[in-house]
Amino acid sequence: MNYSIVFYIIGWILNIEAAFMILPCVTALIYQERSGWAFVITIAACLCIGIPLTVKKPSNRVFYLREGFVSTALSWIVLSCVGALPFLISGSISNPVDAVFETVSGFTTTGASILADVEALPYCMLFWRSFTHWIGGMGVLVFLLILLPMTGGSHMNLMKAESPGPSVSRLLPKVSSTARILYQIYIFMTLVEIALLLLGGMPLFDSITLSFGTAGTGGFGIKNDSIAGYTVYQQVVITIFMILFGVNFNVYFFILFKKFRQAFASEEVRAYLIIILVSTLIITFNARGLFHGFGEAFQQAAFQVGSIITTTGYATTDFNLWPQTSRTVLVLLMFIGACASSTGGGMKVSRFLILFKTVVKELRMLLHPRSIKKVRIDDKPVEHEVVRSTNVFVFTYILIFAASMLLLTFDNLDLTTTFTAVAATLNNIGPGLELVGPTGNFSIFSNGSKLVMIFDMLAGRLELFPLLLLFMKSTWKKF
Amino acid sequence: MNYSIVFYIIGWILNIEAAFMILPCVTALIYQERSGWAFVITIAACLCIGIPLTVKKPSNRVFYLREGFVSTALSWIVLSCVGALPFLISGSISNPVDAVFETVSGFTTTGASILADVEALPYCMLFWRSFTHWIGGMGVLVFLLILLPMTGGSHMNLMKAESPGPSVSRLLPKVSSTARILYQIYIFMTLVEIALLLLGGMPLFDSITLSFGTAGTGGFGIKNDSIAGYTVYQQVVITIFMILFGVNFNVYFFILFKKFRQAFASEEVRAYLIIILVSTLIITFNARGLFHGFGEAFQQAAFQVGSIITTTGYATTDFNLWPQTSRTVLVLLMFIGACASSTGGGMKVSRFLILFKTVVKELRMLLHPRSIKKVRIDDKPVEHEVVRSTNVFVFTYILIFAASMLLLTFDNLDLTTTFTAVAATLNNIGPGLELVGPTGNFSIFSNGSKLVMIFDMLAGRLELFPLLLLFMKSTWKKF
Repeated sequence: MNYSIVFYIIGWILNIEAAFMILPCVTALIYQERSGWAFVITIAACLCIGIPLTVKKPSNRVFYLREGFVSTALSWIVLSCVGALPFLISGSISNPVDAVFETVSGFTTTGASILADVEALPYCMLFWRSFTHWIGGMGVLVFLLILLPMTGGSHMNLMKAESPGPSVSRLLPKVSSTARILYQIYIFMTLVEIALLLLGGMPLFDSITLSFGTAGTGGFGIKNDSIAGYTVYQQVVITIFMILFGVNFNVYFFILFKKFRQAFASEEVRAYLIIILVSTLIITFNARGLFHGFGEAFQQAAFQVGSIITTTGYATTDFNLWPQTSRTVLVLLMFIGACASSTGGGMKVSRFLILFKTVVKELRMLLHPRSIKKVRIDDKPVEHEVVRSTNVFVFTYILIFAASMLLLTFDNLDLTTTFTAVAATLNNIGPGLELVGPTGNFSIFSNGSKLVMIFDMLAGRLELFPLLLLFMKSTWKKF
Repeated sequence: MNYSIVFYIIGWILNIEAAFMILPCVTALIYQERSGWAFVITIAACLCIGIPLTVKKPSNRVFYLREGFVSTALSWIVLSCVGALPFLISGSISNPVDAVFETVSGFTTTGASILADVEALPYCMLFWRSFTHWIGGMGVLVFLLILLPMTGGSHMNLMKAESPGPSVSRLLPKVSSTARILYQIYIFMTLVEIALLLLGGMPLFDSITLSFGTAGTGGFGIKNDSIAGYTVYQQVVITIFMILFGVNFNVYFFILFKKFRQAFASEEVRAYLIIILVSTLIITFNARGLFHGFGEAFQQAAFQVGSIITTTGYATTDFNLWPQTSRTVLVLLMFIGACASSTGGGMKVSRFLILFKTVVKELRMLLHPRSIKKVRIDDKPVEHEVVRSTNVFVFTYILIFAASMLLLTFDNLDLTTTFTAVAATLNNIGPGLELVGPTGNFSIFSNGSKLVMIFDMLAGRLELFPLLLLFMKSTWKKF
């Protein structure tokens, strides 16, 4: 392990977090809130540690995948602990585990909250909660790559560790240019959503914070009833943007470079849209009795399907009260998740595509044992390595899921609550069913269970392995 | 598809089933039950179709994996439909779907029942129910292999399709000798259990039927309270034998041939025993408040753990009322299942071992990208092909599970009932939790849901692919 470069990166993360915290400071100034001081204190603390760590470039430039994974995992842990300080200092959240839970939930774009009454929070805290979604959505290390000239393998190994999906495509020859373009698309789409919400008559503060939550596919609302109180137009805008932010960003990249054929050829995006449509229709018919007519049922179903598959977690209605088929569709969507290289979580549509195709291939092979067809996505054969790592991913995921579920049962809550609490945190969704449904919250769990779910949220966002590596002894060996 | 050989095999299955039905006829004679005629009628029907199909050996001897899988799947379907006739003819079960459900549950060694009051059944029907477990446990095609001299690939391809586990080991050069020895071990162990139960003062009829249920890891009881009414000695004997029948039969084979070193080296069996011990201890501590002292808690926990991991499904207590951690341990054990090449169901311990080791290997590879270590079991490298098919198995399993769960939700029962109903049938266990817990039964489901679970039970017993192949168009193409 090359410790010097890991500390250097963590130092930069602290500096960047200090910079990000200027925005909630401004919010506090505008609304004249005393709790803004909590951010000023945290910024000072960040810089006190961050600047000394970054004044000197590390002499040892060796940077393997191991360093990439460990820096990423540690960066996210540091980011979350520091991000929790304003909540604690201002007294908005008094239990340190709760504060870290809320912040991890923010950065990992989960949106699971331990707060029963979010409307009691000052504006600057609400802003910070939503802003963590936006930062975590595209990834803070991807952001770092734009700022920091780094050498050799370091770029790609950091990008690999933080980007979601079975394989990372380097869109431009230089990783830093790829990162810059991704952020430009991200900022542009966020601004368009803010504008459309403003046009629909939503207040500026609501438009900004809700757009942050949509863009990062996070799900923290600023009202106790999440999105239920907004107009149909506003809900529809949010539905569309949730779905758009769940699309593989490569598509937008291709559109930007006018490669329309490539943009619309993506099998993953097509599968993603088909799953959304089919699920929406199933729920529309299954739950139509709860709404005034087909139109409302379809709009509500589409919102909730979009919210869950993209792992956003906003709610316009208490889907915990829906019939079992609709509830089960939502639970299944939790696991599928959004597209790879989007801001969404879950296992990702492309992984399911790959796995589904291997099953079909297996059945063909049983009939024709000598056939040697490869699994193909977008008309290109999928590398053996990608299939293998997808399989390992799924099984690791199952192991973490089962272990988390078992640990949470010591709180002795009903199995549906426990199961969906793990599903909602490991997949970075937010709400689950029963006690953690849209009208509930995660304060019912013990501190031990909250720590398990903090692990799950981070593991889900970083796609398991960076976090697991921290637990291996040989990771920490010096060269 | 070579139809002539498929029909030939199905003909033999009918003849064998007719032979097996002589035993319940004898039971009916002993107890002077009129419903014994139902078996006589069914035997006549079997022979009327079976004998014409088998008088002439098929001219086309081509027998690939495809023929193996299709004959196996169709044999099991025919076996179940014919096996359901006595229930229908005698009027013991009036709904045809229920009768087939009960028979499939018997042959697949599931033990899930649609009957609320089994004690109302005549003795010959109770005998037949338990006997189907015994027949299905080791497999009826494995039995056929002993009787029928077949050529070339046919032996191995039938054995592959019916034997549980990620890979089939041919213990002796000739498949028919392997099959004979397996059945000899099976009969011997069943007789020992019957003897031990008789020694403990259990009536002969109970000893025989419960031993059949244990040997096949089935779980049909002959009392409404399953095993709860028997003495502690009798429960302990059953616990030990459930666990013994869940062991990989290769171990007994090695012991028989005095290869003790090989017998005790099996990593799978060691893992299986460790899982049983750890689960029993967790439940003992978690649920101790429900029992009189540590001893009783341990004995009850061991019985239930043994019953669930071997996928038998007997119950001595209503584990649905246990605390959530104990319930969750049982649900997780449902998926693990017994050892490969045992009479138990589930995903099999060896598959979990392989998958667990691939995860550890993956983590090592992230640290040392150039390492090329293979996954090893019993100190032998696991073939790439086995790892691949294990991965495909797990994902196919997940797909079938999710689809079944979704279809069952249309009955609008609570999610724990629905989830564990699928888990209990796909893994061939028997009881689940809540409404399908030890005191409940499967009659609460609609006929549609029962058909889904009939599919799941067969898919679980035949390890998915033989049954899935039936739905592929190209399976049915003539050469």
